[in-house]
Amino acid sequence: MGPLARTVELFYDVLSPYSWLGFEVLCRYQNVWNINLQFRPSFIAAIMKDSGNKPPALVPRKAQYMTNDLKLLGKQLQVPIQFPKDFFSVILEKGSLSAMRFLTAVNLEHPEMLEKVSRELWMRVWSRDEDITQPQSILAAAEKAGMSAEQARGLLEKISTPQVKNQLKETTEAACRYGAFGLPVTVAHVDGQTHVLFGSDRMELLAHLLARGANLYCQHT
Amino acid sequence: MGPLARTVELFYDVLSPYSWLGFEVLCRYQNVWNINLQFRPSFIAAIMKDSGNKPPALVPRKAQYMTNDLKLLGKQLQVPIQFPKDFFSVILEKGSLSAMRFLTAVNLEHPEMLEKVSRELWMRVWSRDEDITQPQSILAAAEKAGMSAEQARGLLEKISTPQVKNQLKETTEAACRYGAFGLPVTVAHVDGQTHVLFGSDRMELLAHLLARGANLYCQHT
Repeated sequence: MGPLARTVELFYDVLSPYSWLGFEVLCRYQNVWNINLQFRPSFIAAIMKDSGNKPPALVPRKAQYMTNDLKLLGKQLQVPIQFPKDFFSVILEKGSLSAMRFLTAVNLEHPEMLEKVSRELWMRVWSRDEDITQPQSILAAAEKAGMSAEQARGLLEKISTPQVKNQLKETTEAACRYGAFGLPVTVAHVDGQTHVLFGSDRMELLAHLLARGANLYCQHT
Repeated sequence: MGPLARTVELFYDVLSPYSWLGFEVLCRYQNVWNINLQFRPSFIAAIMKDSGNKPPALVPRKAQYMTNDLKLLGKQLQVPIQFPKDFFSVILEKGSLSAMRFLTAVNLEHPEMLEKVSRELWMRVWSRDEDITQPQSILAAAEKAGMSAEQARGLLEKISTPQVKNQLKETTEAACRYGAFGLPVTVAHVDGQTHVLFGSDRMELLAHLLARGANLYCQHT
């Protein structure tokens, strides 16, 4: 078994701020940990519904805690997270369906752009309190990530195709099969074992699992 | 300001396995981090009720995830956590009122024994799947922690006194005032700031906050 056996999948939605934190940590450490990192754009609203879970912010003290938790974690991890002013409208009403379909289209046609476009969408909704539901918002994020206007418009046109819709559905169902009840979900395939980790706060555990895998690998060669 | 300004309070209940993980990490690092660690035995059922939160295990996928998460974290942190066989009966029916009142009495009269007795109660319920509700169970934990049978019986007699009942109520209310919606809650008082951290997975963040405090302190002297 070579390094490619160490595959880590990240299921995420740009509506989820903890997904952003997990995403940035994995982007930074993918070379250090020698992992094959695979991004899996998913649709969080469908995962919450399918699992019978409720957004944590519906418990008032959790919403209050999250505000401060994200501020502290953003500083610690140097991710410029800021709570949107009208949080409930952003999360519960506006949602992320178009944005996640767009990222699905990016992943199908220009996977090399997926990291940057995802980050620009997070920068909009979770840093600058900007919309991510309107076509012009999505195009602006794509162009900021380095796509040409033409390329971005071409992808945007594809978000209502069955191919894109079904792909997002399939990825979301794959997350559910792994037991997801929220996002991010990190699935680590190490030395024939599969570990499912929920949240952005299992990265030390992931490092531990990867290190143990690395030790095994060393013994086998 | 001296080191005593760096006070860390841990609100916990022995019914909460993540409280055990947080407790062990703090016990191990209290000298490394140069903190004044204060244990706050609390009653988790009252915190859940007061905050309108529900035990995570009521969402089936969360229960499934927790089983595996605790197994992995137990191995990583070398805490011998094992899920009780009849988890729902242990958590939702039997509860921890007597155990937490007993720990409150220990804290009032023999605070130097609190760490050990707490650990022995966790060893019973979260490692060996043993009862913690019956008087003989609590006495067995106390004796295993190094108390004499006489001392343990003396404390057990006090768990129905208004002093002990009120103290547990007050500590639980203090956790709620800090915004608790579950346990463990770690409250770090560093350089005039108070940070409230939920769960056992904010210990790296705590180290970060303490380090920043230490840096500030160095600049001031």
